[in-house]
Amino acid sequence: MTSSVYEIIIKKKRGFELAREEIEYIVNGYVSGEIPDYQMSALLMAICFNSLSAEETACLTLAMAHSGDMLDLSPLGFCVDKHSTGGVGDKITLIAAPIAAACGARVPKMSGRGLGHTGGTIDKLESIPEFSTELSYDDFIRIVNETGFAIAGQTANLVPADKKIYALRDCTGTVDSIPLICSSIMSKKLASGANGIVLDVKFGSGAFMKTPEEAEKLAKAMVEVGKLAGRRVSAILTDMNAPHGRAIGNSLEVIEAIQTLKGSGPADLEELSIAVAAEMLCVAGRGSEKKCFKLAEKALKSGMALDTFRRMIELQGGNPRVIDDTSLLPCAAYEEEVLSDKGGVIDEMDCEKLGLLSLELGAGRKTKDDPIDHAAGILMLKTLGDSVAVGEPVAVLYSSRPGIDMRAAADKLRAALTIISNGKNKNVNNILKIIKGIDI
Amino acid sequence: MTSSVYEIIIKKKRGFELAREEIEYIVNGYVSGEIPDYQMSALLMAICFNSLSAEETACLTLAMAHSGDMLDLSPLGFCVDKHSTGGVGDKITLIAAPIAAACGARVPKMSGRGLGHTGGTIDKLESIPEFSTELSYDDFIRIVNETGFAIAGQTANLVPADKKIYALRDCTGTVDSIPLICSSIMSKKLASGANGIVLDVKFGSGAFMKTPEEAEKLAKAMVEVGKLAGRRVSAILTDMNAPHGRAIGNSLEVIEAIQTLKGSGPADLEELSIAVAAEMLCVAGRGSEKKCFKLAEKALKSGMALDTFRRMIELQGGNPRVIDDTSLLPCAAYEEEVLSDKGGVIDEMDCEKLGLLSLELGAGRKTKDDPIDHAAGILMLKTLGDSVAVGEPVAVLYSSRPGIDMRAAADKLRAALTIISNGKNKNVNNILKIIKGIDI
Repeated sequence: MTSSVYEIIIKKKRGFELAREEIEYIVNGYVSGEIPDYQMSALLMAICFNSLSAEETACLTLAMAHSGDMLDLSPLGFCVDKHSTGGVGDKITLIAAPIAAACGARVPKMSGRGLGHTGGTIDKLESIPEFSTELSYDDFIRIVNETGFAIAGQTANLVPADKKIYALRDCTGTVDSIPLICSSIMSKKLASGANGIVLDVKFGSGAFMKTPEEAEKLAKAMVEVGKLAGRRVSAILTDMNAPHGRAIGNSLEVIEAIQTLKGSGPADLEELSIAVAAEMLCVAGRGSEKKCFKLAEKALKSGMALDTFRRMIELQGGNPRVIDDTSLLPCAAYEEEVLSDKGGVIDEMDCEKLGLLSLELGAGRKTKDDPIDHAAGILMLKTLGDSVAVGEPVAVLYSSRPGIDMRAAADKLRAALTIISNGKNKNVNNILKIIKGIDI
Repeated sequence: MTSSVYEIIIKKKRGFELAREEIEYIVNGYVSGEIPDYQMSALLMAICFNSLSAEETACLTLAMAHSGDMLDLSPLGFCVDKHSTGGVGDKITLIAAPIAAACGARVPKMSGRGLGHTGGTIDKLESIPEFSTELSYDDFIRIVNETGFAIAGQTANLVPADKKIYALRDCTGTVDSIPLICSSIMSKKLASGANGIVLDVKFGSGAFMKTPEEAEKLAKAMVEVGKLAGRRVSAILTDMNAPHGRAIGNSLEVIEAIQTLKGSGPADLEELSIAVAAEMLCVAGRGSEKKCFKLAEKALKSGMALDTFRRMIELQGGNPRVIDDTSLLPCAAYEEEVLSDKGGVIDEMDCEKLGLLSLELGAGRKTKDDPIDHAAGILMLKTLGDSVAVGEPVAVLYSSRPGIDMRAAADKLRAALTIISNGKNKNVNNILKIIKGIDI
């Protein structure tokens, strides 16, 4: 006999573990509308307090994944996916995916749009003229077969359970629960069909997880769910107390990704992208960590990764000449150099504030139907640990928004930086640790 | 600036105290429909985990009380109300209220109907032919002025916030929270307008609170809310591991109440009724506990309380001759003597089972529109601590329900009793302790 929703709520409220059938009943009943919002939100709140075990989280994730279409990637053989929990200036996918593909990995990637203060890969790629992320299943498979990778928007019926549960969590104060965050991310990854998954779990001022401890908990939960679902999963904990690289905003990030693929990008971004690509190769079973790292490095240095990116842009309908001439990307109507009002060392950056400022300049959406200004954003000239003199430029702001107050925006940028006079220059280590699933 | 519902949920979820304005915004917004069920149920679940302070509970209770009509009892001077958290065979109001009224207290009582396995005073009184509990405000005041007490059903618009919140709690697993139970009970008491309130808080197998500790927590919370709302409140903790007296069911309980008012009722019931009446007099400022006890005892022994009850029945349209001839009350079509299948001492009684059996015999409702069989119920011939021989009658069951299986019912009654062969006879102490508000 199936338990009633009421009994399931009470069970979780009292701290007991839910059975697989109970979790499946909840997910299916909620998606079908049989279970009302008010019972679901009470259960979600009880989960926030009493959490879910690894087994419960895996059951929830799988039940959610199966609520809609499950993408069949079997024509491609072993596929590897990469997911970031969301950061500021995070263009790692645009660099790591072509590197991994150039080394022979299959990377059929479904991506989302920007959320809150963080950008989305789809928005970034759409700054390339004519580029299309609306691919048919056949085109998606064909392009991956030809170049090793393709990036498409999520299909409408991918994990409807997550869409409905996330919307409810968003207005009932039940977002910040590790097992719920884990199930939201991993259900989409499982439904997207890849056999291997590399998770880039960020912590710090620009991440949803503010501390390394929280990020590690989430990373472990996701790796465990992947294991229980029979996928090969690794998680990389990365520092989001500074933007990755210097560019924040869609076309600005595409330009920086191209520069990095040409070998002339910021060192931190190159390092992180190679590490993620190497981990993707590890997960795909291409050898030891050391070997995969060397393969990735070689693909970047040789220009093979750049060629792969160029070919993928062409196959997805975009103008591949942007690789050689980035002025073909959209240009902002206004730009404003931001001068420092203090001298010293940049000791802290509030990356969430930087992300929100970029959004305000036009690079993101406040509501899901807002149009995007692909050229808008921020180019940091200085980053965490850099010295800066009074009056020295620290950033350039770009916007095409009519009537935007660029001076007020410059003030906001300055307010996001903590400059201390007696600070020491420092190098930020982007990668805290890697948490690997079994046999990786 | 008022916090949003979202912020209020998060605040409570993180264990912070809510401000008066926030609580008022929640109650008013929920009653008006501005705040949806799914946000309210998330907040209620967070309250189940992080509780409410005494001040928050008082704010919630007052906001709920003011959501509908507030009864104006000022024409009556100082009034005292009495409330039971619900028990099996609980006819204390029918005895204690006339005692207190006979001693000069004003007892304008609004009562509810039966809920679950517990009976309601209104249902009991309606077993008296022609008795009406639907009184106009003017009649209510007039009858209290003339006899000292009257018992009316709750008006439709008494605490609409409680009706709506209770219905939501009932299906979201958020019933068992002391501050929420407290606000539900006390909001109705505050809206009912009495200056003094005696709470009979029950614990044990037949009560909603199973342990004395839980009952004491609830009692203290309610006394504290009363104090913060400027009312004089006492709470009596009473033992509901056996029914009060021997009768369970509406007309059976009226008969037992009349017997007790005549001085020939069960000793435990007489003792408890006098204690509750004495506490009502204390709360009404009639003197020391000892003095009030003597006043109450005298009102019972002298027959004054019985006369008060008779007059009240008459003024509320009932046939007062039932006092002298209880055969005027409805009689059940079937009766079944239940014989013990064991010898020994009754060591435990599952009062909730007895209450549910009485309901099944016809004395209560499964849904709120079910008709009631006023004659149905159980007369216990033995109670907790009594000796019983094999084949000796322990109870008589009454029902008029066509096709009822009285033998199966007898089995259920036997199953509710734990008889042990080497047990000792014991006297049950009904009153555990009295928790008094200030200056009582």
